[in-house]
Amino acid sequence: MSEPIRIAMIGAGVFARDAHIPALVALQDRYQVVALASRTLESAQARLDLFPYPVEATNDIPGLLARDDIEAINVLLPIHVQAPILAQALRSGKHVISEKPIAPTVADGKALIEQHTSGSLWMVGENFRYQAAFMRAAEMLADGVIGRPVLANWTMYSPLNPGDTYYDTPWRRSGDFPGGYLMDGGVHWVAAFRLILGEISRVNAFATLSRDDVPPVNTLVANFTFDSGCIGNYSAIFGAAPGANYSTGLTISGSEGLMQVGFDQVTVTRGDETRTIKVSGVRNVQAELAAFADSIRNGAVHRGTPQQGLQDVAVVEALLQSADSGQSVDVERFA
Amino acid sequence: MSEPIRIAMIGAGVFARDAHIPALVALQDRYQVVALASRTLESAQARLDLFPYPVEATNDIPGLLARDDIEAINVLLPIHVQAPILAQALRSGKHVISEKPIAPTVADGKALIEQHTSGSLWMVGENFRYQAAFMRAAEMLADGVIGRPVLANWTMYSPLNPGDTYYDTPWRRSGDFPGGYLMDGGVHWVAAFRLILGEISRVNAFATLSRDDVPPVNTLVANFTFDSGCIGNYSAIFGAAPGANYSTGLTISGSEGLMQVGFDQVTVTRGDETRTIKVSGVRNVQAELAAFADSIRNGAVHRGTPQQGLQDVAVVEALLQSADSGQSVDVERFA
Repeated sequence: MSEPIRIAMIGAGVFARDAHIPALVALQDRYQVVALASRTLESAQARLDLFPYPVEATNDIPGLLARDDIEAINVLLPIHVQAPILAQALRSGKHVISEKPIAPTVADGKALIEQHTSGSLWMVGENFRYQAAFMRAAEMLADGVIGRPVLANWTMYSPLNPGDTYYDTPWRRSGDFPGGYLMDGGVHWVAAFRLILGEISRVNAFATLSRDDVPPVNTLVANFTFDSGCIGNYSAIFGAAPGANYSTGLTISGSEGLMQVGFDQVTVTRGDETRTIKVSGVRNVQAELAAFADSIRNGAVHRGTPQQGLQDVAVVEALLQSADSGQSVDVERFA
Repeated sequence: MSEPIRIAMIGAGVFARDAHIPALVALQDRYQVVALASRTLESAQARLDLFPYPVEATNDIPGLLARDDIEAINVLLPIHVQAPILAQALRSGKHVISEKPIAPTVADGKALIEQHTSGSLWMVGENFRYQAAFMRAAEMLADGVIGRPVLANWTMYSPLNPGDTYYDTPWRRSGDFPGGYLMDGGVHWVAAFRLILGEISRVNAFATLSRDDVPPVNTLVANFTFDSGCIGNYSAIFGAAPGANYSTGLTISGSEGLMQVGFDQVTVTRGDETRTIKVSGVRNVQAELAAFADSIRNGAVHRGTPQQGLQDVAVVEALLQSADSGQSVDVERFA
């Protein structure tokens, strides 16, 4: 067993609290969190009791990035402020994992890729790429269990109201980055569509702001054409009324059957037979951080290249462009 | 009680057999079917034993339209041959009910409206406008049970295979009219969306032919913008694999709750409370024919004006245009 990777976290928000810190603690054999940085020392200090071992709190990010005893950096900051700090981390020569989206725009994402020091790893976190049921669905579809996919749909109505974790994060509804929740949340669903069905070549969409408090847009109907010839739709509202949750999961009509993909199961119907396969697995962020460690220590291939992360943003950006222009938009290709 | 309306049917296909004849028989107090016409005498004769009283079979349509003892005509012919015969019926001065779509194209529908003799009624059949649960949903939505609708979705995968009623009708998959099943079937769903959510102002769509045997197109993802500001998506495949049925019903995210509309129930969720209302009613074609009779005898308003039927076709035609052009299309307005 190799030494645990000495990692520092930059960002101490709700996703650090709820996902990354629990995952890193669960992976103590692979990671030792050395330091936790935030813009204010107080917000970093507030998370320290989540660790079962001593961790330093700091607000000195340049100092952190200059330390020789830190091998990897985990950057998870609000979308509109992450890019410049991520750029510093990428230039430091340390291995970096950064939260999705790679950047608020394709142009910013491309610029970050140029900042990246060769020789170190950079993984862009996208936990939906490590959702065990989605990975299983992708394999099953590739194995032809429903033949050729021809139509795919996911409709999702998600409440966002005071008291909800992702509402009470003010930056998410500040209007400070293009697409608002449709970018912040939308990249996840785009990643799942791409993982399971392959690349999206062309999109058209309408988008509205259906509630004033979640600007700039929060409601979307988006059609996709995939390279495979399959077409699809992703419809989402981030900001449904309280209690008005609804999600179909990903449903796929294939030339030989029907697949329904949920977060923890895959159901396949062919003719008179329906099979439901429960898919368990560690929580997706933990699976992702385990893959990052395996990549650092063993050179294993991971699913979160910057090009993958950039492709998710490119699709969302194309959707927003289509909603603005009223025209179908060809998606720029990076992955 | 007034005398039953003496009506003649032109068309003896599967929808006459399965829907119209049973409905007219159930409405014996309002209708007496005098004659049943078809292109061949044999196909008309083959349906006569479905009636509990004597009915004439004929293939002489001009002769039928000239008879003084017939008050109303029910035209239900294949899409690509209906228009010229419907035009004759409309010029006859008799009351006419004709099956959807009003015509294969908007231009043909407009031309038919010009043929219509004023003074007689013309109702365009669209049974989804008489689906009791849909009418109830429209009322509930107008009453504000979920506030302002902001996002609406209906995804529907429908198998069509040898042995299925609407597959074994060769004209439906002949490729002889624009849109194929997306027109023949699609107008129903468009009518339901319009009934419940109001007029559709703008659309964008992708469409493909995912199976060679159901030309010209059978698979659709279509985004809508409604006059109300609501946006929506209708995704459909006519020609899913055997057993691969899937339908979400119409789901609507509103500013105050969630509505889910099925063919026989409406479910409303607001906060912690979900109410499901079972909606029974006579079969939709029977309700429609009852409304036609009530309109003839009592001057009652019905839901099937030619302008309504034309509007459904205008939306489908706009979808097909958008799929061809890659641009959003403003829907021409008639209703």
